[in-house]
Amino acid sequence: MNIGRFAKNLFDSIADAGEKYLDLRRVRGTTTQNLLALCEDLVSHKGVASGLALARQLVYRYKNLSPEEKLDFMLRLNKAMGPNLDTVAAAALKFAKSPDEKLLGELADSMASDRRKLFSRMIMAPNGTQAIVTMREDLLVFLKTHPELKPIGDDLRDLLTSWFNPGFLTLTKIDWNTEASILEKIIKYETVHDIGNWNDLKKRLAPNRRCFAYFHPSLEDEPLIFVEVALTRGISGSIQSIISDNTSEKGDFDTAIFYSINNCQHGLRKIPLGNFLIKMVVNALAAELPDIKTYSTLSPVPGFAAWLNNELKNEKSTWLTAKDREILSKLNEPDWHMDEETSQKLKKPLLHLCACYLTRAKKYGNPIDAVARFHFGNGAQLYRINWLGNTSSYGMERSHGLMVNYLYDLKQIEKNHETYVQQGNLAVSKSVRGLVG
Amino acid sequence: MNIGRFAKNLFDSIADAGEKYLDLRRVRGTTTQNLLALCEDLVSHKGVASGLALARQLVYRYKNLSPEEKLDFMLRLNKAMGPNLDTVAAAALKFAKSPDEKLLGELADSMASDRRKLFSRMIMAPNGTQAIVTMREDLLVFLKTHPELKPIGDDLRDLLTSWFNPGFLTLTKIDWNTEASILEKIIKYETVHDIGNWNDLKKRLAPNRRCFAYFHPSLEDEPLIFVEVALTRGISGSIQSIISDNTSEKGDFDTAIFYSINNCQHGLRKIPLGNFLIKMVVNALAAELPDIKTYSTLSPVPGFAAWLNNELKNEKSTWLTAKDREILSKLNEPDWHMDEETSQKLKKPLLHLCACYLTRAKKYGNPIDAVARFHFGNGAQLYRINWLGNTSSYGMERSHGLMVNYLYDLKQIEKNHETYVQQGNLAVSKSVRGLVG
Amino acid sequence: MNIGRFAKNLFDSIADAGEKYLDLRRVRGTTTQNLLALCEDLVSHKGVASGLALARQLVYRYKNLSPEEKLDFMLRLNKAMGPNLDTVAAAALKFAKSPDEKLLGELADSMASDRRKLFSRMIMAPNGTQAIVTMREDLLVFLKTHPELKPIGDDLRDLLTSWFNPGFLTLTKIDWNTEASILEKIIKYETVHDIGNWNDLKKRLAPNRRCFAYFHPSLEDEPLIFVEVALTRGISGSIQSIISDNTSEKGDFDTAIFYSINNCQHGLRKIPLGNFLIKMVVNALAAELPDIKTYSTLSPVPGFAAWLNNELKNEKSTWLTAKDREILSKLNEPDWHMDEETSQKLKKPLLHLCACYLTRAKKYGNPIDAVARFHFGNGAQLYRINWLGNTSSYGMERSHGLMVNYLYDLKQIEKNHETYVQQGNLAVSKSVRGLVG
Amino acid sequence: MNIGRFAKNLFDSIADAGEKYLDLRRVRGTTTQNLLALCEDLVSHKGVASGLALARQLVYRYKNLSPEEKLDFMLRLNKAMGPNLDTVAAAALKFAKSPDEKLLGELADSMASDRRKLFSRMIMAPNGTQAIVTMREDLLVFLKTHPELKPIGDDLRDLLTSWFNPGFLTLTKIDWNTEASILEKIIKYETVHDIGNWNDLKKRLAPNRRCFAYFHPSLEDEPLIFVEVALTRGISGSIQSIISDNTSEKGDFDTAIFYSINNCQHGLRKIPLGNFLIKMVVNALAAELPDIKTYSTLSPVPGFAAWLNNELKNEKSTWLTAKDREILSKLNEPDWHMDEETSQKLKKPLLHLCACYLTRAKKYGNPIDAVARFHFGNGAQLYRINWLGNTSSYGMERSHGLMVNYLYDLKQIEKNHETYVQQGNLAVSKSVRGLVG
Repeated sequence: MNIGRFAKNLFDSIADAGEKYLDLRRVRGTTTQNLLALCEDLVSHKGVASGLALARQLVYRYKNLSPEEKLDFMLRLNKAMGPNLDTVAAAALKFAKSPDEKLLGELADSMASDRRKLFSRMIMAPNGTQAIVTMREDLLVFLKTHPELKPIGDDLRDLLTSWFNPGFLTLTKIDWNTEASILEKIIKYETVHDIGNWNDLKKRLAPNRRCFAYFHPSLEDEPLIFVEVALTRGISGSIQSIISDNTSEKGDFDTAIFYSINNCQHGLRKIPLGNFLIKMVVNALAAELPDIKTYSTLSPVPGFAAWLNNELKNEKSTWLTAKDREILSKLNEPDWHMDEETSQKLKKPLLHLCACYLTRAKKYGNPIDAVARFHFGNGAQLYRINWLGNTSSYGMERSHGLMVNYLYDLKQIEKNHETYVQQGNLAVSKSVRGLVG
Repeated sequence: MNIGRFAKNLFDSIADAGEKYLDLRRVRGTTTQNLLALCEDLVSHKGVASGLALARQLVYRYKNLSPEEKLDFMLRLNKAMGPNLDTVAAAALKFAKSPDEKLLGELADSMASDRRKLFSRMIMAPNGTQAIVTMREDLLVFLKTHPELKPIGDDLRDLLTSWFNPGFLTLTKIDWNTEASILEKIIKYETVHDIGNWNDLKKRLAPNRRCFAYFHPSLEDEPLIFVEVALTRGISGSIQSIISDNTSEKGDFDTAIFYSINNCQHGLRKIPLGNFLIKMVVNALAAELPDIKTYSTLSPVPGFAAWLNNELKNEKSTWLTAKDREILSKLNEPDWHMDEETSQKLKKPLLHLCACYLTRAKKYGNPIDAVARFHFGNGAQLYRINWLGNTSSYGMERSHGLMVNYLYDLKQIEKNHETYVQQGNLAVSKSVRGLVG
Repeated sequence: MNIGRFAKNLFDSIADAGEKYLDLRRVRGTTTQNLLALCEDLVSHKGVASGLALARQLVYRYKNLSPEEKLDFMLRLNKAMGPNLDTVAAAALKFAKSPDEKLLGELADSMASDRRKLFSRMIMAPNGTQAIVTMREDLLVFLKTHPELKPIGDDLRDLLTSWFNPGFLTLTKIDWNTEASILEKIIKYETVHDIGNWNDLKKRLAPNRRCFAYFHPSLEDEPLIFVEVALTRGISGSIQSIISDNTSEKGDFDTAIFYSINNCQHGLRKIPLGNFLIKMVVNALAAELPDIKTYSTLSPVPGFAAWLNNELKNEKSTWLTAKDREILSKLNEPDWHMDEETSQKLKKPLLHLCACYLTRAKKYGNPIDAVARFHFGNGAQLYRINWLGNTSSYGMERSHGLMVNYLYDLKQIEKNHETYVQQGNLAVSKSVRGLVG
Repeated sequence: MNIGRFAKNLFDSIADAGEKYLDLRRVRGTTTQNLLALCEDLVSHKGVASGLALARQLVYRYKNLSPEEKLDFMLRLNKAMGPNLDTVAAAALKFAKSPDEKLLGELADSMASDRRKLFSRMIMAPNGTQAIVTMREDLLVFLKTHPELKPIGDDLRDLLTSWFNPGFLTLTKIDWNTEASILEKIIKYETVHDIGNWNDLKKRLAPNRRCFAYFHPSLEDEPLIFVEVALTRGISGSIQSIISDNTSEKGDFDTAIFYSINNCQHGLRKIPLGNFLIKMVVNALAAELPDIKTYSTLSPVPGFAAWLNNELKNEKSTWLTAKDREILSKLNEPDWHMDEETSQKLKKPLLHLCACYLTRAKKYGNPIDAVARFHFGNGAQLYRINWLGNTSSYGMERSHGLMVNYLYDLKQIEKNHETYVQQGNLAVSKSVRGLVG
């Protein structure tokens, strides 16, 4: 019995029955005001069937709103179903006068947001989980211009953090025997290194490649995050050689290169899912392929060019010498990497500056580069900076062609992780330390 | 890849690695004080591996505490990791003076309980979910004598409500093709009508029986709740005839009798799981067995004898006439139901009083009988009261041998449910209304 | 444990071990003579491991032969490993003199072909079943020009008939949740109505379409035969409207149209697999979609144009009148079906002649049309002949644009089947009988 | 979709339809004569549905025959549906006169047995495969007293050999997560070391035990053969210590002991299934438990006591000295193994004679002991003879308490196997060779 699908169908039929007992007149209009009325009914209703009917309506209608309507709805929802400030103020005053556990409970009750109840009921509707993830995706956009939506943002973040607890996720191997419906989404969600079509995809899942994804039981056909791995001999430093490799064959491999990690659900941003992913995949690979001894990423340095540009503009930059500035002016020459001489001149200062960028440039005490933060946080070692590792226009523009290997040494990652988290120490290889000078 | 099992093993090995970087000295003792120190470390630690190591320790040690130690630990935890009342009081005062969203956020932050963080981390440990369910089971016992533990009780209830959202549950058919490890637990958890051994169990899963259970993805081998069904001709009114039936064969059935519903996890009491169970099973049966036209329970009336006893003691009881009292005195004769004459005399008043008990006796506006509340709440109709439906010593003692059928009519249950929830109306058959008089 | 894959890997490693104990020198050359020596070794060897090593070699080497070499090998094998005619003659004479069971056994033993032993051992090698199916595919081609290969053909037919007993096949639903590796083969094997690419395929598997395939446990990733179904309202008579339909949505369907049936393994021709396929699919659809009341094919009439051409050439043809011949001359006009007037003139005689072709033209007492034979044999009724049902160049050329519906009426098919098989009666609808005149 | 079960149900409904078109009058009686008429109809009928109806009747009726009726039916079937001896004789004579391929084909056709066609059709009926396996089980018994049944025995053996080709079998791990319906059969089929009840069974499947079984796709719930394994430290020589071990825990194991191998289907005797079983299990264990370095059986010596008894009766026996005979007379003392002194006296001659029995006593050039033949044939080494390895009354009676370890050394088994099969060499450890003297 495919229970997931079964449960969905059943909920639909219970909702059908429930619809008969609803007075949908009040909420039938298509304005966001009507939608809000529907939310209020869902929260106040006690019936299971009518509740499912309302939840289903809500999911369906929200989906069909225009972006402007969605924003309008969020603003209304933010005001309407939050706690009543006056009521909270009264309970707060009462508690402040004689603070005890009982009054604390009453204060907490006064602060309870009907929105959380609303979302908890929505999740029961067919595709309810997906709807809430989409709501948060929308909200994260709106928050940039409407910071007053923070309360509703906090509600969604807290609920999703609880529902997407890593203990509930499953890791699944993706290969050419995976269902087409899932593979279609791998094509769609791969944004680091595009997959053009199904033939491209087949190459990414060839015998010398691996792919793993996290799933959540109530988003059963939607990967949350996935990682692509190339099996190689030695640590590859060039993304072109991996992407364009057509050999597709089993071979005498000793290394696994993690060359693409994609988050699929923007609505789950900052919900902690992924800090186990690479470690789990490393362990899965170790079980399947005992000959693989080395695990490494081949990662972009997405913020390097922008950072360097800023430093070049900043006359007081302590990272740059006058000579550096002179040489780096050649970066403006189109296709400089095709010219051997220019390339050779740029190599040394760029590698040095990138090493500084990754290991010295900090923000709130942590590395400024988001990818570096992610891998240091996982316990990886910054192993090597690769010259002309990504010569696509994208790679040249974002990081002057540099790519980085972060090494996942099973014997070191836990120690690296702990010392990074507790003392802020970065695990950096001797060769990269040498580049810093 | 059996991901559930795989993830567990991996978490164990990550925890093994993490253990090396822990200073377990501070928490190594076996006192509950040491255990609390461990909790504090778990909440304050940032490391994934060391966090898993601490969580695993906590799960393991809690399990091995004596009941007295568990209570002691709960009392300490209740005090130690709740919000600081003074800090909350300050934030409350600030908010009360000028209530706005920003200060509301600060107030909420001041009230955040480290205990929730603690439990959220514990769940990552191998068997962490089970450990937390067990903790709540213990707590529900302690609460009876230590109401001051309510804050920790609220934390656990809120977290479990979120984690065990019905949208995450799966309904599974249990039969003779089910894994022995699950069946073993069906034997263990069946408390309504005991299953003596594996041969007994096989009869409960015979071709003329059905069994369905709810599972949660992170408690994979533990049923949460299960229901046993007998396929019959007509609505059976006698539990003996169902339990002792040895025919075990497929037949010409038109009715499904739900004769045993068991909650397996006491730690999930009052966490709403079950209001969909019967409806889902009805739909599953409808899909498998189109000839089944009638769905009914055969249910106990657990509180009837106790209620009647109270009324007999109460001289002003409005339910009882003098003649009733006279006849009912025969209830004290041992094995009265074996005596045809006595039995005939008792039949009319007992059926009448039971009908009153189920439909008229109220508590906070709802039926006083818990089983009746459950089925009315589900939308069932009180269909029939069965004379001598359960003549076991248990049945005679608790309900003077009466059993009840609640009818689940797919065309009516949603309407019944809505009118019960919204107006408090009870769906009662003509014949039972006739008994009330 | 994915046992299929597991067993394969294990057999490979046992074969690896076995290779060490083989003297492959004798058989190492690449001539077909060497290959034959390898066959002889495989039959005479008793070792399991060395046997697997030899079988694997044989599978591998056969695959890499050129067509000419394959033919040469078959001719050698046909001679070399058949029974010794002199030995058989001696046993035959002995038996003929005093026929009894014991001597019959001896005669049978003398006739035993080492080739069957050879093939039975080959099947143990990784991909051995596939290799034998391919061998028969090759052989069926060779037989056309080399009828003397019949003995080896009989061996393969008998073994495959036994191994592919319909009792061992499984019917599987193919949809967008099927593994890509299987779907890729659906694209490859669809030859009736080409599938251009994965987008095309997705339309064939849309919610208003169904697809089912037969598999055999030892050819696990290879469909043997599959059928494509369109859900429609009413019995569709035009293949264009089915193939080009882009609605892809669930709807209010009452009819299932079987519009494409493909045999995938040419090496299994005349091995009886398929006579249950349509009936099984009808039952599967009936279980899933109770609203579907009508099951019909939309089938080609592949031999009609060729047959008609022959009759036109035959001056004594009893099917054609002079007037027919005059009108039918318009068939030579290019794109006659685009011209309304011509089309109207041709309609009546073509429908009449097609009805005759399908119901009257016989060969060995059975309908001359292979598709008609297949469906009559299954118990279907010839329901309707559709004018301009397939206006593709292919359809115009092969059957002057006609398509046929064969109706599968669950209440009639068994009776139709029995009367067809036992008395040769054809089930033909009133309207088609009317066309015959 | 559980296809196996689905297909069965469908065949049942097709058979239901087919029954209407059968004239069952002729075959309706319950005599074996009627049954034979039914067989003849099944072979001559062409209809699919009526064929299924007949096949189902046949399966059902055969099952309900008494042993005497079964024998009577077999004798009739053996005569009735074999080839016609006169026809064969005529074809044989014709062929003998001018032997060529064409006449060989005709001779083969004349010899075709309708019984094979009959069995091939029976297998399509629900439970048809099981019915045929049961028929052969019956037949193997009848053959002992009725050797004239050999022709039908050959038919069944040939068909089952083809259908149960090892390439079609799957190896499955049996543990406490296996379906109860399968476990029930493990209890039933374990005859080497009885399993008393479900608690016993759970011990056999404890974390320090393993169990593996072979299945065939068309006998899906019936194990064909299974092996039980104990994980131990060092090579255990005592079956008592394995059977009575209650630790059930994971531990620091280096050895896997195969202590019980059971054939479940007597109807498959001499059908070659098992020569891969142990090797496959060794490989499965190696993959799961890399710390296991040694694979050994703990096997009975079932024929030793009987053989020794014969030699003692034979005054000219070359194996026994006068002194041996004197000491061995103590074997008649009841419970001699409880008496330390007697035991010590018997130890040396019994170990010596057992070593001779296993390695020197031959029948047709192979070891006389069936268990020894099996393991030598698999490539195992006779590693050790264990004194008082099985002191159950059964063990004392059959083998004077001796048990044997056969060692499966992955590096040696293929070589051992090849030299045993090709040259008859036995792989015997130094210590056992020492016992021979």
